[in-house]
Amino acid sequence: MTKPHREQLEVFDNSYPSRDYEIQIRCPEFTSVCPKTGQPDFGELIFTYVPDKKCVELKSLKLYLQAYRNEGIFYENVTNKILDDFVAAAEPKTATLVSNWGPRGGISSIITAKYVKST
Amino acid sequence: MTKPHREQLEVFDNSYPSRDYEIQIRCPEFTSVCPKTGQPDFGELIFTYVPDKKCVELKSLKLYLQAYRNEGIFYENVTNKILDDFVAAAEPKTATLVSNWGPRGGISSIITAKYVKST
Amino acid sequence: MTKPHREQLEVFDNSYPSRDYEIQIRCPEFTSVCPKTGQPDFGELIFTYVPDKKCVELKSLKLYLQAYRNEGIFYENVTNKILDDFVAAAEPKTATLVSNWGPRGGISSIITAKYVKST
Amino acid sequence: MTKPHREQLEVFDNSYPSRDYEIQIRCPEFTSVCPKTGQPDFGELIFTYVPDKKCVELKSLKLYLQAYRNEGIFYENVTNKILDDFVAAAEPKTATLVSNWGPRGGISSIITAKYVKST
Amino acid sequence: MTKPHREQLEVFDNSYPSRDYEIQIRCPEFTSVCPKTGQPDFGELIFTYVPDKKCVELKSLKLYLQAYRNEGIFYENVTNKILDDFVAAAEPKTATLVSNWGPRGGISSIITAKYVKST
Amino acid sequence: MTKPHREQLEVFDNSYPSRDYEIQIRCPEFTSVCPKTGQPDFGELIFTYVPDKKCVELKSLKLYLQAYRNEGIFYENVTNKILDDFVAAAEPKTATLVSNWGPRGGISSIITAKYVKST
Amino acid sequence: MTKPHREQLEVFDNSYPSRDYEIQIRCPEFTSVCPKTGQPDFGELIFTYVPDKKCVELKSLKLYLQAYRNEGIFYENVTNKILDDFVAAAEPKTATLVSNWGPRGGISSIITAKYVKST
Amino acid sequence: MTKPHREQLEVFDNSYPSRDYEIQIRCPEFTSVCPKTGQPDFGELIFTYVPDKKCVELKSLKLYLQAYRNEGIFYENVTNKILDDFVAAAEPKTATLVSNWGPRGGISSIITAKYVKST
Amino acid sequence: MTKPHREQLEVFDNSYPSRDYEIQIRCPEFTSVCPKTGQPDFGELIFTYVPDKKCVELKSLKLYLQAYRNEGIFYENVTNKILDDFVAAAEPKTATLVSNWGPRGGISSIITAKYVKST
Amino acid sequence: MTKPHREQLEVFDNSYPSRDYEIQIRCPEFTSVCPKTGQPDFGELIFTYVPDKKCVELKSLKLYLQAYRNEGIFYENVTNKILDDFVAAAEPKTATLVSNWGPRGGISSIITAKYVKST
Repeated sequence: MTKPHREQLEVFDNSYPSRDYEIQIRCPEFTSVCPKTGQPDFGELIFTYVPDKKCVELKSLKLYLQAYRNEGIFYENVTNKILDDFVAAAEPKTATLVSNWGPRGGISSIITAKYVKST
Repeated sequence: MTKPHREQLEVFDNSYPSRDYEIQIRCPEFTSVCPKTGQPDFGELIFTYVPDKKCVELKSLKLYLQAYRNEGIFYENVTNKILDDFVAAAEPKTATLVSNWGPRGGISSIITAKYVKST
Repeated sequence: MTKPHREQLEVFDNSYPSRDYEIQIRCPEFTSVCPKTGQPDFGELIFTYVPDKKCVELKSLKLYLQAYRNEGIFYENVTNKILDDFVAAAEPKTATLVSNWGPRGGISSIITAKYVKST
Repeated sequence: MTKPHREQLEVFDNSYPSRDYEIQIRCPEFTSVCPKTGQPDFGELIFTYVPDKKCVELKSLKLYLQAYRNEGIFYENVTNKILDDFVAAAEPKTATLVSNWGPRGGISSIITAKYVKST
Repeated sequence: MTKPHREQLEVFDNSYPSRDYEIQIRCPEFTSVCPKTGQPDFGELIFTYVPDKKCVELKSLKLYLQAYRNEGIFYENVTNKILDDFVAAAEPKTATLVSNWGPRGGISSIITAKYVKST
Repeated sequence: MTKPHREQLEVFDNSYPSRDYEIQIRCPEFTSVCPKTGQPDFGELIFTYVPDKKCVELKSLKLYLQAYRNEGIFYENVTNKILDDFVAAAEPKTATLVSNWGPRGGISSIITAKYVKST
Repeated sequence: MTKPHREQLEVFDNSYPSRDYEIQIRCPEFTSVCPKTGQPDFGELIFTYVPDKKCVELKSLKLYLQAYRNEGIFYENVTNKILDDFVAAAEPKTATLVSNWGPRGGISSIITAKYVKST
Repeated sequence: MTKPHREQLEVFDNSYPSRDYEIQIRCPEFTSVCPKTGQPDFGELIFTYVPDKKCVELKSLKLYLQAYRNEGIFYENVTNKILDDFVAAAEPKTATLVSNWGPRGGISSIITAKYVKST
Repeated sequence: MTKPHREQLEVFDNSYPSRDYEIQIRCPEFTSVCPKTGQPDFGELIFTYVPDKKCVELKSLKLYLQAYRNEGIFYENVTNKILDDFVAAAEPKTATLVSNWGPRGGISSIITAKYVKST
Repeated sequence: MTKPHREQLEVFDNSYPSRDYEIQIRCPEFTSVCPKTGQPDFGELIFTYVPDKKCVELKSLKLYLQAYRNEGIFYENVTNKILDDFVAAAEPKTATLVSNWGPRGGISSIITAKYVKST
């Protein structure tokens, strides 16, 4: 299985670039590995973005996310890294990524990172 | 079965044009076809608008939406196109269309497009 | 059964007129008749108002709403008409009426109308 | 689009035929057409069966169900016909089909049909 | 508006009389009148029956139930009477009627009546 | 305020005595007093009975239950006593009373008592 | 049982007066009496306040609220009176009281009153 | 803090010993310690019993359960031990104890133990 | 990462072998791979068993289930195989395994397999 | 068991300090002791913070919170003290702590305290 890299994310032309509309994508089946314990982590990722000239192709997003299956990476870092890759590929006007993780030791975490294109 | 076209949308006179009030219409039974795979898509459409001089007649809206049953069209495009047709027919002060789609490959999408009459 | 008229709405003195407080009244058992099909419509009405010098007496509101039982009237019109009658009777500082209607042909509607006293 | 026929349903060998276990399959995206009004119907189908020597292949089930998209057929008949086709293809020990339909005229329906292999 | 009578209930031939299957019909929009207070009652009716040679036609059931709109009748009696009419029209193998009524004076009621064809 | 006594419970003739049907009555607004601490208790009472020749009149039930408002009585005893009074008044074929009490010290209680007429 | 009076409300020193933090107190077991009908009313009270130099002691609040058990008072008045007493005792920076009442005649009410210390 | 022992459980006379009725007690605030890891465990205990001559006094049950706060004991053992102590104290006709534990390592557990008096 | 094998499942002595009690274990974070498409599957596994002389140690169960992370195996087979391994390790009196899988192509599956020790 | 002190809270470097992102941590298994009654309190703590240069390590947070297990401290004080310790350790840009406590005497409490770094 390949490692995740942002070139996996494919885009297509936004047919309505003159209107600012919002796309939300829910991915409840994300899994990666805790780099400290080697144990798998499970979470839901929720992308919300306003496209500029490009939209993210969903099947390529699925394959990109699957590539984290055996990657060791912390919650905070995987959230920020995926947002960075998403922004690099889609160049959206705004984008938010929420990652919601299953409980560990009685404690569960939600990370929310946002991007706004500088104008 | 006819193809969808905006002339299918009928309107009636708004009896309270001096008050800005909001009408929300939920259509949980929308279906169209994915142009890439030929597979049917299922979604819920939620219109929220402030009428100006006209209100949209619900039965004509139902028939207009049914005309997408065998149309191949992407999520983003069908949402924007339906909003455009709705706005052309009703000429509302504001209008929002949310489309909420069933999961494909473990991923589900929600598109939100808004229109505000320029003044 | 009498037809609905705003004189049915009784009021009593607001004992706390110097404080702007909010009263919400939920009426889940409203029914009227569709003027086009003659079929009964069922909905929930939710009033939210800030009283000025008067509060609406609940039993009179119940009887007033029951008078719509055999009235033929559209969703948009009944919502605006009831709000107008409510405002005429109670002369509130602000008032909102939400009407939430059962599905017809797979489509359901929510109407929201607001009133603000001009100052 | 082809009409639905039971030969569309493919099966594969049950690897655990000596144990009576249960398989439930939920299909929330079923649509057919009312033969009386020509209007589309939307429902959820839930199959629950105990396989004998064969299991139903899910992708072929999906395609078989999609073939009802433009078929005019009543709730009761489509439920019984699909159960008959399912039983003919899979020859299960027992099978139940529940169909749960969206409201029409304020009324919604659930049909439950069962099959038990005679011994 | 006509008074309710069992001749309003229409039936059609059951196409699968050799299989005992179950039909559930939910009617959340029932209303009648309390004979004691003259106040409207609101409830949900749920029919569950196993057809023999006949199925109940849904539109005729809707019209039959609407005829109670201005009838004065107690919870217990309307439930038993409607079940009797339903059984007389459809001659089912078994039938159950549940009526679930909105609260009055802080108290709400559910009535459940069953019929089994004697053999 | 009067103390609760079973003569408060009024009954009316069951119009369908030949059919065994079930009546459920939910009373979410019951309150009595803890005899040990003097603190008020709050609970929901749910009666479920099959009437014989008599049905319980709901308004009299409401008044009977209100008479416990200032009575000091334990959960177990109030549940059994009310069931006894209900049975004495209505002489049902079967009757069940469930009482569901708000938490005290982090602990909440549900009492379920049943009566079956000996034959 | 004593009548409710604001001296029943005890306070203790706020240990963190330099930080504006919020305390919400939910009291789902409030009961008083309708002055018109003599019937008991049941509601939930929710206090939300930002303490200044004092916090309200919960046990004294419970006893104060219990003193309304046999008081005849309207929804609007009891909500405003309790807020006034609460503010007089605790002298908070801000305070909100929401009272949420069980349905009467198919209608239920929620009253929301707010206080902000003038500066 | 004392260690848990069954003598902490107090009982009182069942006033209705001739009727088999059921008492359910929910304790959502139970905590003990994992003997392997030293980490605290959190669970909900639900007792359901039919009393014979004695009922369990709730405050003593609360104190008995609190005594497990710093005890190291496995899920299976604490459930069975508490049921044994409960049965020894109350000598019920039947008793069931369900313990429902928070997730550890993505896995959560529910233990259900039952007692029936031998006759 | 090692392949799953039943020797990974560790057990410990059941301290209450004379009582038939039930242990339910919920594992919402199971993932394996579809052998046909190579795509990951996600499901929840729920074990319910009555122990005989041995209980299953939870950490070893977690590691055993993690070993399926990169295994290609069908829903039906993985459910039956895991139940077989569980039974071989724990030799319970009875055991049930439910596997509940995320939707694919709009269709989701639940498999339920049971084991009863022959006596 | 050690007493809680802020040195127990460990931190690690924030890898994305240039982006303001939010971390929410839910701890549903918090328990401390009421200093007045000696009874245990149970609550859920929810931290929401925007990290600056440091993130809080979750395992150390768990151990820090466990140290309150046998501490006598009021709701208001424990919420403010834990927020102070959290801020001292992590030096975040903003931080909010919500504590949600189980009901006592029919009353439950939620405390919300916020911190914003002065600039």
